[in-house]
Amino acid sequence: MIKVSIIGATGYAGAELLRLLYNHPQVEVVHITSESHTGKAISEVYPHLRGLYDQKLISMKDLDVIAKDSDFVFIGLPHGHAMEVGKALADTNVRIIDLGADYRFDDTTVYEQWYKVPHTHKDAPRVYGLAELYRDEIKSAKIIGNAGCYTTASILALAPLVKNEFIETNTIIVDAKSGTSGAGRSPKLMNHYPEFYDNFKAYGVATHRHTPEIEQALGHLCHRKVMLNFTPHLVPMSRGILSTCYANIKQWVTPEMIDAAYNEMYGKEYFIRLLGRGGYPSTKEVRGSNFCDIGWHIDLRTGRIIVLSAIDNLVKGAAGQAIQNMNIACGLDEKTGLDITPIYP
Amino acid sequence: MIKVSIIGATGYAGAELLRLLYNHPQVEVVHITSESHTGKAISEVYPHLRGLYDQKLISMKDLDVIAKDSDFVFIGLPHGHAMEVGKALADTNVRIIDLGADYRFDDTTVYEQWYKVPHTHKDAPRVYGLAELYRDEIKSAKIIGNAGCYTTASILALAPLVKNEFIETNTIIVDAKSGTSGAGRSPKLMNHYPEFYDNFKAYGVATHRHTPEIEQALGHLCHRKVMLNFTPHLVPMSRGILSTCYANIKQWVTPEMIDAAYNEMYGKEYFIRLLGRGGYPSTKEVRGSNFCDIGWHIDLRTGRIIVLSAIDNLVKGAAGQAIQNMNIACGLDEKTGLDITPIYP
Amino acid sequence: MIKVSIIGATGYAGAELLRLLYNHPQVEVVHITSESHTGKAISEVYPHLRGLYDQKLISMKDLDVIAKDSDFVFIGLPHGHAMEVGKALADTNVRIIDLGADYRFDDTTVYEQWYKVPHTHKDAPRVYGLAELYRDEIKSAKIIGNAGCYTTASILALAPLVKNEFIETNTIIVDAKSGTSGAGRSPKLMNHYPEFYDNFKAYGVATHRHTPEIEQALGHLCHRKVMLNFTPHLVPMSRGILSTCYANIKQWVTPEMIDAAYNEMYGKEYFIRLLGRGGYPSTKEVRGSNFCDIGWHIDLRTGRIIVLSAIDNLVKGAAGQAIQNMNIACGLDEKTGLDITPIYP
Amino acid sequence: MIKVSIIGATGYAGAELLRLLYNHPQVEVVHITSESHTGKAISEVYPHLRGLYDQKLISMKDLDVIAKDSDFVFIGLPHGHAMEVGKALADTNVRIIDLGADYRFDDTTVYEQWYKVPHTHKDAPRVYGLAELYRDEIKSAKIIGNAGCYTTASILALAPLVKNEFIETNTIIVDAKSGTSGAGRSPKLMNHYPEFYDNFKAYGVATHRHTPEIEQALGHLCHRKVMLNFTPHLVPMSRGILSTCYANIKQWVTPEMIDAAYNEMYGKEYFIRLLGRGGYPSTKEVRGSNFCDIGWHIDLRTGRIIVLSAIDNLVKGAAGQAIQNMNIACGLDEKTGLDITPIYP
Repeated sequence: MIKVSIIGATGYAGAELLRLLYNHPQVEVVHITSESHTGKAISEVYPHLRGLYDQKLISMKDLDVIAKDSDFVFIGLPHGHAMEVGKALADTNVRIIDLGADYRFDDTTVYEQWYKVPHTHKDAPRVYGLAELYRDEIKSAKIIGNAGCYTTASILALAPLVKNEFIETNTIIVDAKSGTSGAGRSPKLMNHYPEFYDNFKAYGVATHRHTPEIEQALGHLCHRKVMLNFTPHLVPMSRGILSTCYANIKQWVTPEMIDAAYNEMYGKEYFIRLLGRGGYPSTKEVRGSNFCDIGWHIDLRTGRIIVLSAIDNLVKGAAGQAIQNMNIACGLDEKTGLDITPIYP
Repeated sequence: MIKVSIIGATGYAGAELLRLLYNHPQVEVVHITSESHTGKAISEVYPHLRGLYDQKLISMKDLDVIAKDSDFVFIGLPHGHAMEVGKALADTNVRIIDLGADYRFDDTTVYEQWYKVPHTHKDAPRVYGLAELYRDEIKSAKIIGNAGCYTTASILALAPLVKNEFIETNTIIVDAKSGTSGAGRSPKLMNHYPEFYDNFKAYGVATHRHTPEIEQALGHLCHRKVMLNFTPHLVPMSRGILSTCYANIKQWVTPEMIDAAYNEMYGKEYFIRLLGRGGYPSTKEVRGSNFCDIGWHIDLRTGRIIVLSAIDNLVKGAAGQAIQNMNIACGLDEKTGLDITPIYP
Repeated sequence: MIKVSIIGATGYAGAELLRLLYNHPQVEVVHITSESHTGKAISEVYPHLRGLYDQKLISMKDLDVIAKDSDFVFIGLPHGHAMEVGKALADTNVRIIDLGADYRFDDTTVYEQWYKVPHTHKDAPRVYGLAELYRDEIKSAKIIGNAGCYTTASILALAPLVKNEFIETNTIIVDAKSGTSGAGRSPKLMNHYPEFYDNFKAYGVATHRHTPEIEQALGHLCHRKVMLNFTPHLVPMSRGILSTCYANIKQWVTPEMIDAAYNEMYGKEYFIRLLGRGGYPSTKEVRGSNFCDIGWHIDLRTGRIIVLSAIDNLVKGAAGQAIQNMNIACGLDEKTGLDITPIYP
Repeated sequence: MIKVSIIGATGYAGAELLRLLYNHPQVEVVHITSESHTGKAISEVYPHLRGLYDQKLISMKDLDVIAKDSDFVFIGLPHGHAMEVGKALADTNVRIIDLGADYRFDDTTVYEQWYKVPHTHKDAPRVYGLAELYRDEIKSAKIIGNAGCYTTASILALAPLVKNEFIETNTIIVDAKSGTSGAGRSPKLMNHYPEFYDNFKAYGVATHRHTPEIEQALGHLCHRKVMLNFTPHLVPMSRGILSTCYANIKQWVTPEMIDAAYNEMYGKEYFIRLLGRGGYPSTKEVRGSNFCDIGWHIDLRTGRIIVLSAIDNLVKGAAGQAIQNMNIACGLDEKTGLDITPIYP
């Protein structure tokens, strides 16, 4: 049995980890922490878990105990805090999967620039946690910086095109839309039910912190700096992300070459379902599951490709991918604990 | 392995059976039928299942083959059609769980009165499929008439009170509210997205066919005829039922006696989570799971009890209970394939 | 021109007053106050009003100025605070319409019992602000305690039956459902978008403060004490209330007598649209308007009547009725400023 | 009084015309037609209008009568049908506002190419009905081809940039999102409530018929052919469109020049509310009103501008703009009948 603990277990990613780990045959959840709800049963904070989990939330101050009892630690803390934990656990055997941003970047100055906090663990032995693209590195990683939600959908959508140099990378635009659980569990006016019902808006235009993360991953694939626009939007629903990605196709590239590139890169990937050319993923078709559905459209008239990519922001965009990464890191079948159908309707 | 087939597999209950059975360790889904989609892959009708089920839908005309290959058959046909199937399979070894109404009634004239169709299998060896209350009969049932969604929530809410004669049964009122998946998958104006968004309404007042079903089950518990009002309402959401049940409490009954009655009847039931006196179940806390959450409130001022009961209409209200009944009928642990957490948020 | 001011203008009722008053041909909005947003333009707090209202919010400390400049003052403060304002303005000519509960009760001990605050203006010259039933008193009222949202829908639903003694008043049950704007604009976990999306629940069972208000109005109609159960529920939508009201019909009452009672009481009421026996009001059919749609169903089998009543909680349940009351009090055509169609879809 | 008739009055645009015209002080609605509901009262088809409109729907076969009795005719028929009406009324004095696509195009071969039906009224004296940009032509137009919903939002967003040659028009991408009322009132599986709740998807990628309409209007502004990508998406809400428009800014253009361009073009436009640089329009802030809210963001890092534009698809995207155009054509104040606040929440 793999012993896991969750530090910062009361955000939605934490709740989702508990849902998925409940049925993971090889995992035992040992400790769960929360600073705002220390001492409470998790089912007090998340009543849907009553009768399923009886753990009490402890404080993360007991990091030693947590480390001693765990093989893996998932960190669900806000950015800026995970690196403290990572640093404290640097000399232990515990392996870390951070669901936040602290360990996603090669270049910590990029992190500092976009996240506006100093990075205190610059030399951490870390790997970017986007399972399908960084699988080998993840196998032996000490610290995995689990990829972000929007970024996972967007990078997976564009990777085959960038890797094969099929598109002009300086024309990439990612227009993404997410359900409201992506904004977290703290009540705010913007997410107040009557405020956002029958409403739709963009936010973080040109400034969203997922921008450099997508640029980094795509840059890895084509070995040069990539600059793009990423625009997130809030959808009046609970879960789900659809990423609509645009780019100019190079003149010599044919639709067949593009189809082949997707099939080659993802044909064997269990969690990536290719809808093919002309396909229309929808967020509900992957809801509750670790799937990423991808469809692409080629506009010969304008010379552009439009790639659509749908995930569940809490599963493939957070907890599901974290467990997938843990499976990889443990040498387990990647599907372990994640082999479920989406929930429809 | 238990071999199951689903006749009429393309309604929402069918889709939900496929979701839950996917992870049932002892079940193999053999045949799935549909008359409107014969020949199609199920993933064509339900794209969320792509990559998970590759079965093609056959016609139910091949009932012999289906029966021969199956231990259990779930019927997801509209009422009036299941009895034909039941009759045709009467002399086979196949055991049947009908998710419709055809086999729910002791007295088929009641069925005919409310469903307006003649009953063609009046002497069918059938059992009412509300697991917690009819467990013994279900164990050896040939045909199980799976309880309805609203009825399951309402009967479970009231059963301890009726069994113990704590309430005046002629004062019972059930005011229930359901998400839209309960109305099925056929597009109609009432359920057209822009028509029902930001909308709420009642329907079937004094005429809903679940009325006699609740009356029958409660009548079984107190051994006399029960008559009540049941009013369904449609909520602009996907899944979930909340039943608000009212009744006058007999003068000699104390709150403690009521608490004890619920604990006694349900304390050991895995799928019934008692929130206790003052508890407020919510549909989202059971969403996607087979749980029924119950809370009750005693109004000493008016002498009434108000019981709140929440289920997922497609799980405990249909497919989940069907599988629970199948487990009982097979002698399996009742939780098999149903031991999952609700999905939140 | 009637000069009106709004004290506590930044709640949803305040915003709704501003929407409806914008097109009231005889009203000029003079002062609008807010203690939390003093100094801001109203369009800062409610951006949808940009370009339509340029007023700045002032503090209510300047009550003298406000009184001097206004013919009418609408109070949108939380309960407990309006009575201070009413007392301070007792000797002025300003007429007051309080959208809260402070002036709704004949017997202030009932208020104190349910609202848990001492009433500091017990002898206020007040009238209950449910336009259709208290019209004459409203005409000359100094202070109008605008009826509550749930209460308006419920009282209007039951009034003809109670007035004519057609039902056993001790069997009345009101099961009501409201959109989330009824809970106000303060972000709370319960109303946090991802928490309440695809969710439904009851609250305030046996304890909701609208209970005595309904009891009082019905008591006025039959001249005796009425006791009933009122159960509110939250619907995952923005606006709207549907009240489902149950009562036992007296044996000698016929359906025709009931129909006649509704027609007699409401046949000439512009804002009450009778859908008749068998009618199914829906909240969206009155959304954005001051209408109350009523339909009733008689269950001869159980001897009960079920009355359905739909309003927009912010219009007929608050701001619309307040303006209707103001029109009555000013001797204007009651429809002035309220003669609009609902917004659909 | 201006006499208007609505041909094809039972779609959502027709219902919205009836809502807005109800309070238009100069308009009398004379005839309303429907082929599917001929003979019914409009309140039978749209119960929210009960008590407000008592007209019966007639057939459009009586076109002569309709023309004789009307000054203006609004056409709410599906594309391909309006041109028959326009042709039939060519020699009458009646002025026509078509809410469909038949009269939007200068070049009818473009229409035929994208709408796949032959154009039977190629030489019609028509004007594109986007009020702010075609005001002069609209004043004396015989036939106004009311602009589409997505197109209105997108063209208004980009017009100042294109007119001033601030952007590379071959880099324009429009990513738009609409509530479900845009898809009309015919029940279809895609818009079936439980199918689309908690769901989001794109459609019509590279093929949507609004593409050439946006290209035409922008082409008018810069006097050359414009080619762009337009991608629509469906949002699980009732109303609203947000258009997110991207383009590369020419090197010599400064943010101040862009701000000035928007202010110059729209500063005096009542229905266009400029949120300025950094502004975030939301669909709910314009809901129910004829406003178009625009905000823009300049990304100096990538050299792009991102313009956000929000409208209500049924108001500024259809009925509201149609009435605005009618006001212009009649020489009335453009705000007549449209001077209302959005409805919030």
